Amino acid sequence: MRRDDGVQDLIEYLSGEQQRFRAELMDFLRIPSVSSLPEHTKDVASASSWVARRLETAGIGGIEILETGGHPVVTGGWHGAPGNLTVLIYGHFDVQPVDPIEEWSHPPFQPVLEDGRIYARGASDDKGNMLIPILAVEALFAVHQRLPLNVKFFFEGQEEIGSPQLPSFLARERERFACDLVISADGGQWGEDQPSLLVATKGLAASELHVRGPNQDLHSGLYGGAVQNPLHGLVQMLDSLHDANGRILVEGFYDDVVELSEEDRRLMAAVPQDDEEIRRHLGVEALFGEVGFTTLERQWGRPTLELNGISGGFQGEGTKTVIPRSASAKITCRLVADQDPQRINGLIAEHLRRHTPPGVEAELVASESMAHPYRIPPDHWSREVATSVLRQVYDREPYTIRTGGSIPVCSLFKKELGAETLIFAFALPDERFHAPDEFFRLASFEKGQRAWCLLLDELARA
Amino acid sequence: MRRDDGVQDLIEYLSGEQQRFRAELMDFLRIPSVSSLPEHTKDVASASSWVARRLETAGIGGIEILETGGHPVVTGGWHGAPGNLTVLIYGHFDVQPVDPIEEWSHPPFQPVLEDGRIYARGASDDKGNMLIPILAVEALFAVHQRLPLNVKFFFEGQEEIGSPQLPSFLARERERFACDLVISADGGQWGEDQPSLLVATKGLAASELHVRGPNQDLHSGLYGGAVQNPLHGLVQMLDSLHDANGRILVEGFYDDVVELSEEDRRLMAAVPQDDEEIRRHLGVEALFGEVGFTTLERQWGRPTLELNGISGGFQGEGTKTVIPRSASAKITCRLVADQDPQRINGLIAEHLRRHTPPGVEAELVASESMAHPYRIPPDHWSREVATSVLRQVYDREPYTIRTGGSIPVCSLFKKELGAETLIFAFALPDERFHAPDEFFRLASFEKGQRAWCLLLDELARA
Repeated sequence: MRRDDGVQDLIEYLSGEQQRFRAELMDFLRIPSVSSLPEHTKDVASASSWVARRLETAGIGGIEILETGGHPVVTGGWHGAPGNLTVLIYGHFDVQPVDPIEEWSHPPFQPVLEDGRIYARGASDDKGNMLIPILAVEALFAVHQRLPLNVKFFFEGQEEIGSPQLPSFLARERERFACDLVISADGGQWGEDQPSLLVATKGLAASELHVRGPNQDLHSGLYGGAVQNPLHGLVQMLDSLHDANGRILVEGFYDDVVELSEEDRRLMAAVPQDDEEIRRHLGVEALFGEVGFTTLERQWGRPTLELNGISGGFQGEGTKTVIPRSASAKITCRLVADQDPQRINGLIAEHLRRHTPPGVEAELVASESMAHPYRIPPDHWSREVATSVLRQVYDREPYTIRTGGSIPVCSLFKKELGAETLIFAFALPDERFHAPDEFFRLASFEKGQRAWCLLLDELARA
Repeated sequence: MRRDDGVQDLIEYLSGEQQRFRAELMDFLRIPSVSSLPEHTKDVASASSWVARRLETAGIGGIEILETGGHPVVTGGWHGAPGNLTVLIYGHFDVQPVDPIEEWSHPPFQPVLEDGRIYARGASDDKGNMLIPILAVEALFAVHQRLPLNVKFFFEGQEEIGSPQLPSFLARERERFACDLVISADGGQWGEDQPSLLVATKGLAASELHVRGPNQDLHSGLYGGAVQNPLHGLVQMLDSLHDANGRILVEGFYDDVVELSEEDRRLMAAVPQDDEEIRRHLGVEALFGEVGFTTLERQWGRPTLELNGISGGFQGEGTKTVIPRSASAKITCRLVADQDPQRINGLIAEHLRRHTPPGVEAELVASESMAHPYRIPPDHWSREVATSVLRQVYDREPYTIRTGGSIPVCSLFKKELGAETLIFAFALPDERFHAPDEFFRLASFEKGQRAWCLLLDELARA
């Protein structure tokens, strides 16, 4: 496919089918595939069948709905380009719950088209986005009767609940999903006219600190001065985790951090984040974080250790002169490549052990819930291809961005399939995913279809 | 009254009347004078009438039940010793609630005499104790037809709810209650065979720290690294209050502390507190407190600053990656003479203001509920008299003790009447005041009557 021949045909095909594609997306959005609610398990299954049928319509073969032990995975593929690359296209057909339902302007599973936006739960995250590559593949088949490279699909139904069955499922199905590159249709762009390429996501390590003192709550008049107060112990231990400049003091915490290169910092500096606007929006006197980095560098490129909750002793109105028997705190770290969540929890436990004051006992309980950081290598061949495609489609230079959030599936694909993940999707930050009145822009829907056609073609030639 | 004449007559009188005195105490205990419960307001009033009648029976004149705006005060007096001292005898006829009622072996307001103990709510705190000086006065009148000094009574009905009306009441009634010494019949002894003299109580200053950050809860992935976490601010501020050796770092906190003298320390060292036994009982690896002092010195003679509660952020099961918008902590200080609770709260507020990290705002809200410390001067003439009386009655040297608890009425009498308070009472620590199955020992009841006769006599001759 070269710009001077197939492109025009593809654009015409896509234009001609938009009415049908929109109607199909609205059909897809009518299925209330809420993965977190047992009463919607059948709906998640219905969504998987819908996806399977739509893949078939697009011309994909070998379609299967695979058991995972939880919500299923839909797969299929086309292998007609021997010698060329194989890409694995990822997305998810499950959606978030709709609460608070009363804040929706329309019923969340009765999609409405209004001012160029389709309103419905899952419109942006991720049904609209995951349908795009299916439509692009259909267009490529229609115009060229073939695809430029080999394609496999991997659509899951448990992303919104943290994909609990995927690790063991993927470990069993390595052969089936072997590929040269994963392309995720779950992600977004910077703005309507501004493309961006997401190159790194943070990992997550979670834990809970329990501090125990005397075997009973004590009267502060009788025992004040005699025993270590577990609240004092807690506060002392937690305060030892950071210095006053926001740097994390856990020994070894930064050991595996891939430091930001000059190029990384240049790319971040090119993104026009307005710190003053954020400060005003959040209503704080000053932003704050680890010294030596810009706000964006800290948000995107530096690990953080945050207390998420703290509790102990009397919580009611007024005064109670108690020395409580115990106190606790919840901790999560956002990690960057190549930090390992289990190692990090171990380092925190060791640090806190060393900082446990006399008279109390402390235990750090690491959570099962964790995520590895992910970063596509700066020199990975797919990055330049994606950048070039976005530049063509938007006629602007894409920002190279990161996120402080986690996308655990990227490191899972890396681990089980040995493949990097290129995130290539078209949600925009204002589209209220996970909130009432979620919507997806028709303009993104259409632009995405063109972009995917170009991407598959240029990857095949890279 | 000399030991060789009146004493024997007094002992005989008291012995002869014990059956009646016990029956009277049990009558008194049948009145459910729970001051904290509105449905018992009438019972508190009944108890005040009972006390007024009993004073009259004892030979006291000028009896009045005085309005306070809350539960009443019963007074009366005898002024037949012009030129001699006037003592004001204090006690309270209100009692604690009975909950949990199901843990009582007998109904709490149907007193039972068993194995030399009277079981009932209020038996030890304070009805048994406050009846003693009335009986002693009756015996003195019966044997000598006069008292050795001038006596006024001040029995209140709101001690168990913190005596809210007493400050304004006493300020209005200074003249009526003018005296040379207050003697409190609310207090206790060390053990059945071991007397003690309580010479100091701690004060109380209470406050609540509120730390506020962004105007909304934030996602730790998106905003981690951009803002100061209010939980981090809280922990940092609270940890600044103590050093690792348990010393309070609030500037000026110790300024008004009357340092322990050699004599104070000698008297405390003479009290056989077994630290190892306390440690085992509380199940901690080590006791802990301000360095440079024994455990007992810290409990009795040094101020403390304790966190009583801490809260902020996510409190549920599992993990929530939130940076909460606010966090808070409850603080109480136990103060020693001559610390002032209001000044202390001011110093803490100032300290925390200086230790507020960038990116959060903090406010310390001082509580209305406070108490001044009290300490009878080491060289006060009444101390040697009381010590001598206790030595005679118990045939053992009394311990000189203090408490970490507060008895606000002592500093109130000092402020409004200019008089020191001698605590002279006979509860024992195991008598379950404020708990089910409260009891009072008949042996203490009788020993107390003899001791009060001796005390009034020896004070008159001091």
